[in-house]
Parts: sequence; structure tokens; C-alpha cells
Amino acid sequence: MNETFVVIGGDAAGMSAASKAKREDPEREVIVFEKGEWVSYAACGMPYYVKGAVDDLDDLVTVTPEAFREERDVDLRTGAEVVDIDREGRTVTVETDDETYEQPYDDLLVATGASAIEPPFDGMDLEGVFTIHDMDEADAIETYVTEESPGTAAIVGGGYVGIEMAEALSARGVDVHLYEMLPHVLQPFGEPVAEVVEEHLREQGIDLHLETAVSGFAGDERVEAVELEDETVDADIAIVGVGVEPNADLAEAAGIERGPTGAIATDEYGRTNDENVYGAGDNAEATHVVTGEPDHVPLALTANRAGRAIGQTVTGDPTPVGDIAGTAIVKAFELGAARTGIVDEERAREAGFDPASVTISASSRAHYYPDGAELTVTLLADRESGRLLGGSVVGREGAKRIDTVATALTAGMTVTELQNADLAYAPPFSPVWDPILTAAKVLSGKLE
Amino acid sequence: MNETFVVIGGDAAGMSAASKAKREDPEREVIVFEKGEWVSYAACGMPYYVKGAVDDLDDLVTVTPEAFREERDVDLRTGAEVVDIDREGRTVTVETDDETYEQPYDDLLVATGASAIEPPFDGMDLEGVFTIHDMDEADAIETYVTEESPGTAAIVGGGYVGIEMAEALSARGVDVHLYEMLPHVLQPFGEPVAEVVEEHLREQGIDLHLETAVSGFAGDERVEAVELEDETVDADIAIVGVGVEPNADLAEAAGIERGPTGAIATDEYGRTNDENVYGAGDNAEATHVVTGEPDHVPLALTANRAGRAIGQTVTGDPTPVGDIAGTAIVKAFELGAARTGIVDEERAREAGFDPASVTISASSRAHYYPDGAELTVTLLADRESGRLLGGSVVGREGAKRIDTVATALTAGMTVTELQNADLAYAPPFSPVWDPILTAAKVLSGKLE
Repeated sequence: MNETFVVIGGDAAGMSAASKAKREDPEREVIVFEKGEWVSYAACGMPYYVKGAVDDLDDLVTVTPEAFREERDVDLRTGAEVVDIDREGRTVTVETDDETYEQPYDDLLVATGASAIEPPFDGMDLEGVFTIHDMDEADAIETYVTEESPGTAAIVGGGYVGIEMAEALSARGVDVHLYEMLPHVLQPFGEPVAEVVEEHLREQGIDLHLETAVSGFAGDERVEAVELEDETVDADIAIVGVGVEPNADLAEAAGIERGPTGAIATDEYGRTNDENVYGAGDNAEATHVVTGEPDHVPLALTANRAGRAIGQTVTGDPTPVGDIAGTAIVKAFELGAARTGIVDEERAREAGFDPASVTISASSRAHYYPDGAELTVTLLADRESGRLLGGSVVGREGAKRIDTVATALTAGMTVTELQNADLAYAPPFSPVWDPILTAAKVLSGKLE
Repeated sequence: MNETFVVIGGDAAGMSAASKAKREDPEREVIVFEKGEWVSYAACGMPYYVKGAVDDLDDLVTVTPEAFREERDVDLRTGAEVVDIDREGRTVTVETDDETYEQPYDDLLVATGASAIEPPFDGMDLEGVFTIHDMDEADAIETYVTEESPGTAAIVGGGYVGIEMAEALSARGVDVHLYEMLPHVLQPFGEPVAEVVEEHLREQGIDLHLETAVSGFAGDERVEAVELEDETVDADIAIVGVGVEPNADLAEAAGIERGPTGAIATDEYGRTNDENVYGAGDNAEATHVVTGEPDHVPLALTANRAGRAIGQTVTGDPTPVGDIAGTAIVKAFELGAARTGIVDEERAREAGFDPASVTISASSRAHYYPDGAELTVTLLADRESGRLLGGSVVGREGAKRIDTVATALTAGMTVTELQNADLAYAPPFSPVWDPILTAAKVLSGKLE
């Protein structure tokens, strides 16, 4: 009999693994269980559906269930929830609306993703209060905005979901208040980025409430206000985006270990403490390329890459899932903001480095070329080794330049090596010294 | 007495070296001789002055002569041509309109730049026939276009100067014919880029004549036509942009050696065969990061970086000038085209590699996100080592992604390592797999 590869979860990591395994070994039985109906969808695109920049929720689906089944020959079973893993017997228990059954496996991938954290706020179940992590939620928000025409929105959390939803709702004509407990939005991006983004959000008419804790929502059936420590502010719709937590309970119940971050611990091949059970995507840890330590950064590329690698590994071609640098980019109205590696000195010291950092501003184009934008670039390095530790970029164009820094991190470059990278220059695209090089040059001087 | 650092040539390499040396050691005598009046100007910006996108030629000057003299305390002497170098006596002979004198030096930098090649065409001295390499030429072209309102232009040479001037003249309402001897424009960018650019140039109304040799220009006092092998085509203005050649005669006359490319041979610190004489910028060779061989790629960043490093070296802090990857980017109307390293298999084989290459097309943004552009990415690698050798990118947005490849080349990464770089993703900026990663993934598969 052919070997069976079972995948729990039909989004990025799961479907990448299934597709790759089937392509590498068409004889292999590849079964994916997805408890919902949506598979392989771009969660990151949901704010743009709410905004109206993407017409149809189906547009966010990368590969349809039909294509997986027919073109890729994957046995994809939607509406099928795995409720138990029996590692001894190598079976999973599957529940559908109609039946419960057991499915044997040779290799198992747990790709159950993450869930939006639901804080213990009063009134979380009022109508008009949403988290946003799956397609049904995106659909519900869009419908609510269309049907109820909310005048004022309360967005709780200034992470990238909060900021993208602020842009989306603002574009829909809603007056947006954004509440963030911490002193700055986009905490993982560091202060230099946050300050630029905050100024821009205010320019765009967002009512920004920093260091402001939300305690709950008030209203009859429907949300009418957001409750702060000593104030109540009107709100016709509320979006709670305070982070995600890995869905690791199913795995943990079967004795699969969590790592220090609470996500499933994995080795460089995505294997858990059971050599036939893999973890990948938003529920799993990955190794940080700078610290060498396990980290949990639930992002799409990490999930896709790890899934694909595991698809290769289970079919006999052991492939590392790759390290992560925590690279992220977010659009905030007209700005792009991006980060990679370690972006603040405190975090660098915690990781055992002796950091130096610089923040510079430079034009995205030659100074005389029209329509250039100011880019703010931060870079960090270790004083002793000169090794680059991370950085951030924010501006109206060119935030994707973070990729240069991310690539340098993957290569383990020093600041001096980065400073000598031969980057592209022509007046419409860059100053002679690209802002990344300028930052490296200044930082390099500081390390001497 | 203080040591004297003499610099011949007041553009990127020369002024960078002078400024850096003076900053590192304010006591040092730093004298720059520039035979013209313009210093530290952005030659790359000249087409945009002709186009009308830059209002004033002075805008292209990065630092004014006054600022060099007063703020940076550099003894900058314009209108002063060095006509002889006496290496034995460590002096240079300087000619101005008024006098000839000798200037002793301890260290000397020859930063005499390059000149536009003037092919032996008939009629090169007709009015309305221009090369474009210095500010006076840019000024003359702009004036000619304004005063004579040429109806038709002949641009000879499909390199980046030719393409930028095609865009510039087209924007000024001139009907542009572009003549290229070779089968493709932008020869150093490789065929996949050339094909995309050629299609776009034609869409933009440029009359593209490939594999078409120009033999000269016809006209009375003023150019009236361009002469081809068996045809004569009307032309009211002609721009000849068939490349540049290093200005190395002065140095050669003093026994400074040229390298295999014809430019001044230098070591990793920019030193020539005389340890007190340096060469940098468009007249000097640099080491190619992929081949390890001397190469001559006269571009602004190389000149600035080498100049700066030499300024450090002569003041007692030996600093390598850095390797080059031949990274270049050019705007062709709505397109950006970029290249780095080795972009075609033939050249890779000449350099001793066993190359494999791929060309892929992918969207610059998530497939569902509005206004994405198709990017065509080419990557080359060595089959045996897996080492990345170079690549190119062309598309309506995102050509600056070449920096990721350039950084990977500087770091000596393999394709597999590049494939695992944690690049930034969000729908407005990239697909989940950045096109560079997609190309690396496909190429990696091909190497197995």
C-alpha cells in the first residue's frame, strides 16, 4: 500500500505541503482535513476586501478547492475537523456533519494556524464587535459596514491588522478611533517607524489614542460605545486586533510539545518531538536567523515555505524549512513600513548582543528627481562582531528596500559588508548611495 | 609641513576622496584640480534635465564649489588642468588660463573620469550632432531642442544613455528613431530584459532600428539626416551614445598601468602600480565580486565609494574600495530595468562557471491587489556550487528588487540560501513569494 501523508489545516502551510508532496510523489496518498470551507486564502488581503480595493472575497483564494482536487490530485476534505491525534496508532479522528471516522497516517502535518486573541472585554459578543482572522469574519465586517453604515469605529490594537483596518474603514467613510495600550503603534517595528506612522495616521484623520487601555464595549444588542478607564467613546463598530495565538491545543493533547513561545516546537525540518509529526505555519515556531533561537512570527511566507519544505521532506528529500528574520511590511495609508531582524537595542541586549544603532532619513530618489519621498532607515549591529542585527524602513515609497537588509541577515553579513553591497542607482530609483547604504555607512562609522 | 593629497578631477570619485580626507585629517592639505567649471555633478541626471523633469542644470550639482571650499575646506581649483604627472619628483604640472605651475604631492588620486566615445562617423561635427557626457553637452542639447524644435531625432546606441535620451526627447515632442547595431538594446542587461524594453519602447512610439549600423550624418552646416547602410533617414538632431572610454592617457604617460579593460589597474585599496598614486571612478578598474577579476563598469556609486575609501586610506585608515557587481538600473518610460552580476550563460561560461538560468514572470503585488505590474526576473547560478552568479529584473514597478540579488552576490550566497531569505510580504507590496524568491525556487529546482 502507498504511504499516506495527512495534513490538518487547509491554508498556506497545509496546502503548500500537500501540493508539493503530491507533485514530488504522485503515488502518495495525500489527504487534507480542513474544518471550514475556505482553503488556501490570503488572510492578509482581507482588509483590502473591507476597504473595497478587492471586489470579491473569492479573489483572495489562491487555489480553489476544485483545483486542488482535480489539477493537483490532493484529497481535500473541507468541513472535516480533526478532533484527536493518536500517535501510537498513527491515526487521526475526523468529525464531519455526518460522521466520525479514523484516518491512518504515515506522516502527519499539523497546520492548524492561529486564532485572533479575544481579550476578556465586556461586551465582546455585542453585534458589531469583530475580530478579523478568517474569511467569514472579513465577510461579516464588510456586510456590517455596507448595511449599517457605521459613523464611528473603534479599532483596538495598533498592530498591522489595526492599522490596515483603520485605512480600510476610513476609506469606507467611517470616522476611525484607534486605541493602543502601549506608547506606540506597530511595536515590533520599533520607535522610529512608529513615530512616522503615527504622524501620518493623524494627518489622515485617524483619532489615535496611545497608552489607552480599552476595558470593554457598551451597547444594548449592538455596540454603541467603547469603554476606557475614565471615559466612554461612541463607536458604531469595533474591530479587536490585539494579536493571534497559535492553535496548538489539538497537538498538545496528543503530547506534541510547545516551545518557549507557546507555539509547536519544531526542528530545522519542521519536525515535532514525534518524528512522524510535523508542525508548520501560524501554529509553529521557527528558528530566528539572528538569535538562532526559536521564535513565533506567524506570517504567510514562513507558512508557505515551511509547508513546501515538509512536502519535500516527507517524500524523501529532506529539506530545511528555513530560518526566519521576522521580516514584515505593512501599508498605512500612503506609507509603507517594514522591519526585519532585531530592531531595538533592548531586544538586542536580551539576545546577548552589544548593539549600536542609527536612524537616518534620506530621499528615495536622487535629490533633484521629482516625487521622491523621505525614507527613514534604522539599522542595528553588534559592536564586537560588526554583524548586522536588523533594521526598519518607513516612507511613502521604497519600504520594500527592507529586503536588502533581510537578505544581508540571512547571509550573516557585517555592516561593513552591507555598506559595500553594489546596489542599484539611477536618479528615478535612488540616490547614488541608497538610503540602506547611507545607514550602513553611518552605523559602520559608529562601530569604529 | 603637512602632507599634501592632490586629486585630479572634481567629480564623484575626486570630490568624495577630497571631502573624506579633509574630514578625517583637517590638517592635511587637500587640493583638487578640475579642468572644467562643474564639480560634483550628477551626470546621470542630465537626460532628465533635457526631458524637462529637472528645471535647472544647477540642481544636478550635489555640492557646490563654494561649499567644498568654505564648508569642507577643500582647496578646489577649477579651470585648472593637470597636464603632466612626475612620479619621480612627486609633482603634477597644472595649466590654467593664466599660468603653468608645479604642485608637489604626497598622495595623488587620478580621478579623470571617462569620455563619450566619438565613433568615426561622417558628419560628427555637424551642428545638432551631440554626445552626452558632461554638463555643457546637456545644456547644449536642451538649448538646441528649445530653440530649433527638431521634428525627428536619431539616437545612436541603445544603451542606457540612448534609452534615457529617447524618453527625454519623446517627452519634448520629438519623433525618436533609435539605432542599435546589436540585435538588442541594453546589451549588458541580457535578452529577457531587452525584449520587454523593446516592446515597451515601440508601444511608446519609438522607432526602433535593431541590427542597424549608422555610418554617419548628412547635412549642410546642420544635421539633416542619418546615413545607414542602404538608406538615409531624416534627423533634425542626433545623439550619439555608444559608450564611454576611460580617460587614462595622462596617467599612462606617467607610467601608470592600464588593466585588461583599458582602464587604470588598481588593487583593493584603489592603488595603482605606484603606491602613492590612486585611481578611482570612471577611469579605473574595480574587482568584480562574482568573477574576482578586474572589470570596468563606470557608474556613480562605484566612483563615490572608491573615492571615499581612498580618502580614508591616504589619511591612515586603509579601507578597501569594495568590489563591484556591475549593478545597474535604468528607467525606460514606464519601465524599470535592472541587472547585477553575470546575466547571460555565455558570459558565465567565459568566466569559468557551469551556468543554469531561469526567467520567470510574476506580479509585483498580490494577484488580487490593484495596480500590480508584471515583473520578469532572470537568475543565473553555477551548477556545481549552487552559487548565485547574477540576474535581472524588468517591469513597471519593483525593478529595485535587483538590490536583493546584488546583496546576495556580495555575500556569495547560493541560490538555495537566497530562496530561504525572509523577504517582506504584504499584498500591496509583493506576492507571498516575492518574484525574486520565485525565480530562486525555480532555479534551485533546475540545479538538482
